[in-house]
Amino acid sequence: MQSETLRKLAAEFAGTAFLLATVVGSGIMAEALAGGNVAIALLGNTIPTGAILVVLIIMFGPISGAHFNPAVTLTFWLRRDLSGALALAFTAAQIAGGIIGTWAAHLMFEEPLIQLSQKVRFGPAQWFAEGVAAFGLVMTILLVLKARKEAVALAVGLYITAAYWFTASTSFANPAVTIARSLSDTFAGIRPADAPAFIAAQLIGATLAWLFCRWLLDERTKA
Amino acid sequence: MQSETLRKLAAEFAGTAFLLATVVGSGIMAEALAGGNVAIALLGNTIPTGAILVVLIIMFGPISGAHFNPAVTLTFWLRRDLSGALALAFTAAQIAGGIIGTWAAHLMFEEPLIQLSQKVRFGPAQWFAEGVAAFGLVMTILLVLKARKEAVALAVGLYITAAYWFTASTSFANPAVTIARSLSDTFAGIRPADAPAFIAAQLIGATLAWLFCRWLLDERTKA
Amino acid sequence: MQSETLRKLAAEFAGTAFLLATVVGSGIMAEALAGGNVAIALLGNTIPTGAILVVLIIMFGPISGAHFNPAVTLTFWLRRDLSGALALAFTAAQIAGGIIGTWAAHLMFEEPLIQLSQKVRFGPAQWFAEGVAAFGLVMTILLVLKARKEAVALAVGLYITAAYWFTASTSFANPAVTIARSLSDTFAGIRPADAPAFIAAQLIGATLAWLFCRWLLDERTKA
Amino acid sequence: MQSETLRKLAAEFAGTAFLLATVVGSGIMAEALAGGNVAIALLGNTIPTGAILVVLIIMFGPISGAHFNPAVTLTFWLRRDLSGALALAFTAAQIAGGIIGTWAAHLMFEEPLIQLSQKVRFGPAQWFAEGVAAFGLVMTILLVLKARKEAVALAVGLYITAAYWFTASTSFANPAVTIARSLSDTFAGIRPADAPAFIAAQLIGATLAWLFCRWLLDERTKA
Repeated sequence: MQSETLRKLAAEFAGTAFLLATVVGSGIMAEALAGGNVAIALLGNTIPTGAILVVLIIMFGPISGAHFNPAVTLTFWLRRDLSGALALAFTAAQIAGGIIGTWAAHLMFEEPLIQLSQKVRFGPAQWFAEGVAAFGLVMTILLVLKARKEAVALAVGLYITAAYWFTASTSFANPAVTIARSLSDTFAGIRPADAPAFIAAQLIGATLAWLFCRWLLDERTKA
Repeated sequence: MQSETLRKLAAEFAGTAFLLATVVGSGIMAEALAGGNVAIALLGNTIPTGAILVVLIIMFGPISGAHFNPAVTLTFWLRRDLSGALALAFTAAQIAGGIIGTWAAHLMFEEPLIQLSQKVRFGPAQWFAEGVAAFGLVMTILLVLKARKEAVALAVGLYITAAYWFTASTSFANPAVTIARSLSDTFAGIRPADAPAFIAAQLIGATLAWLFCRWLLDERTKA
Repeated sequence: MQSETLRKLAAEFAGTAFLLATVVGSGIMAEALAGGNVAIALLGNTIPTGAILVVLIIMFGPISGAHFNPAVTLTFWLRRDLSGALALAFTAAQIAGGIIGTWAAHLMFEEPLIQLSQKVRFGPAQWFAEGVAAFGLVMTILLVLKARKEAVALAVGLYITAAYWFTASTSFANPAVTIARSLSDTFAGIRPADAPAFIAAQLIGATLAWLFCRWLLDERTKA
Repeated sequence: MQSETLRKLAAEFAGTAFLLATVVGSGIMAEALAGGNVAIALLGNTIPTGAILVVLIIMFGPISGAHFNPAVTLTFWLRRDLSGALALAFTAAQIAGGIIGTWAAHLMFEEPLIQLSQKVRFGPAQWFAEGVAAFGLVMTILLVLKARKEAVALAVGLYITAAYWFTASTSFANPAVTIARSLSDTFAGIRPADAPAFIAAQLIGATLAWLFCRWLLDERTKA
């Protein structure tokens, strides 16, 4: 493997690991301290997640594009921005990074390393919410890339900050995040059996956003 | 209809839809989780709303100007920045988008699709608050457009973040938002009978802000 | 009076009015909703205040410099950036704007227009806190003006966000704000009898910051 | 000592002093007001800390580089960006500034000046958390310096905002901060006996981040 490709995969791995350490770790911390008030716990989960996304996208953007999300990688593959082989490698790095980040959170908070979530997240309303969440995320990325490239990091962080609250599913919007969170029986968890429908909804939402933005920006895929 | 006009209307529609999905959806989420503490619920409503406004204005700004608000469209029509016909089409797209966004929030949270709010928001203090809210919003837009154009998205998001708390009405400041919120009997609702006075106050506040800024910036309307 | 001077004074007046409407209004809203949890009330007071400061400084900066604060005006007068006569006129506009903004908050929240605060804020620890708060504010302004001029609005908003919490006095740091808040017997109030010592501490802190920054930046006052 | 070096040390001293005044002061304020809800107290500690970091790094960056942290100074010494003698002087200024800032917070809140913390922060999970926290902080600084130099202040503020919640230790990530906080028996404290292990973990995390970034950016130390 070329050294440059290896660096890209390392960036996707490290970025997704820090993202999941934040999502899972801040969820554990916030729930432990919130005294049963779930809105306060969600604030303590939202603010760190939005903040770290801005940081991670700024720092890894020039190296790998800072996807951290197979649905985003799918979108850029649909746009012919990266090859199918690289897209698959990105996806593998993201999933591996997400799992390692989740386990790092478990270690920091003295939780058992290996867990399976028992939190039910199921039903058409949840799936619709995940579709909306992923649609909005991909629309944010594609339109802000066009409108003001250097604002993508801020826009994604702020979008997820909002989406944690306006989607009934608290906006996973990311298959690697969904898989990783199925391995944590904490605040941020999702039952493994519920993950596939979430992932399907995310991929559909992302694809629809790509089609919508292609029309809105009057673009065709590159030749 | 020209394709470019259609894209502008789609941008106004989609932006206002995501704005209302956020306002109504985060209101439902926040109230459900806040355990009766209304200040925490309002924080969980404020932070997402301010965040999504920054994102939506950055991404739709280059396409339609990112008004999402008939009072803002009125202001730009007063400045002769768009024609009366286009202003009316924008207003229609904003109202339609706001309603669809509200309904999307209802679907995500398994609420009945069709609702009418029963929340009373009435009286001179509330109307004065809406006038102040709209005055401040339009002043923010016009002065920041002049002072530092690329900061409008951030400024509007931060202004609404503040105005949710400093106006007694929690700052609707937007006729399309007012109409859409009258169709949701949730945290963010307003009784349909109370909407017209809110809208009147908003249009008066916006017009006064336009006059004030025209003097302050020593501008005349374009010939 | 020249038209340009009048516009500067109008900017100082309007900016300080919106600042105080936010400080006092969000204080009333936050305290009313927080169910007795003062930390939540202070969050609901802090976030709007920091947010509106960023907006107001961006929009009024190019017109008047966006002082909104006699201690800041004093600093710029010490630097010979404006004349003594203009500094006095700025101070008058700031005080008048602050009072009008406080009264606007009272009107919006159906409070009696004319009030005197009964909240005791007294003693050496409070005065030391106000000195620190004003020192930090003026240091922020002078050093950021030198380091990255376009970041002053953001820096001041973030500084006050922090200072609300790290100073025991919740960081008034502004004589016009102190006077205006003495006229509101609400969350943000201060007993009129306690105001002069606060103002003295603020002016001392501001002057010391000016001296420190002059040395740190190796500057002399302009000839 | 040269006047320029003195100014650099003054910047490191003043910046670390304001950082610690904020960390310790907002901790005291937040805990006093939060009515026993530790998540709310931590929000009231996190938001001011993240905010002041952005401000301090913007304003002192051009003067001293705005390290405020011996682990960061170590990193830049490893990169040959400053001499060993200057690195030691920086470290001394940071430790002195941190202690003075802590004492200033005690004075403002009428706490006894001289204290020793009794808060236990001990064990492998805490040490791993500090290693992760410092790794992430140094990675943020080095990668953002390369990717977008002017965003370092924002990135560090947002990173610490996240790390307060995702690390079980609430992310000290800074030996000067650790020493200073051992001298405050308040919300932010750490038992003096627990400080050395924290500092060791921080220095290891920082060094590993330097190695990782050197590989990721394909850099060698300067000749």
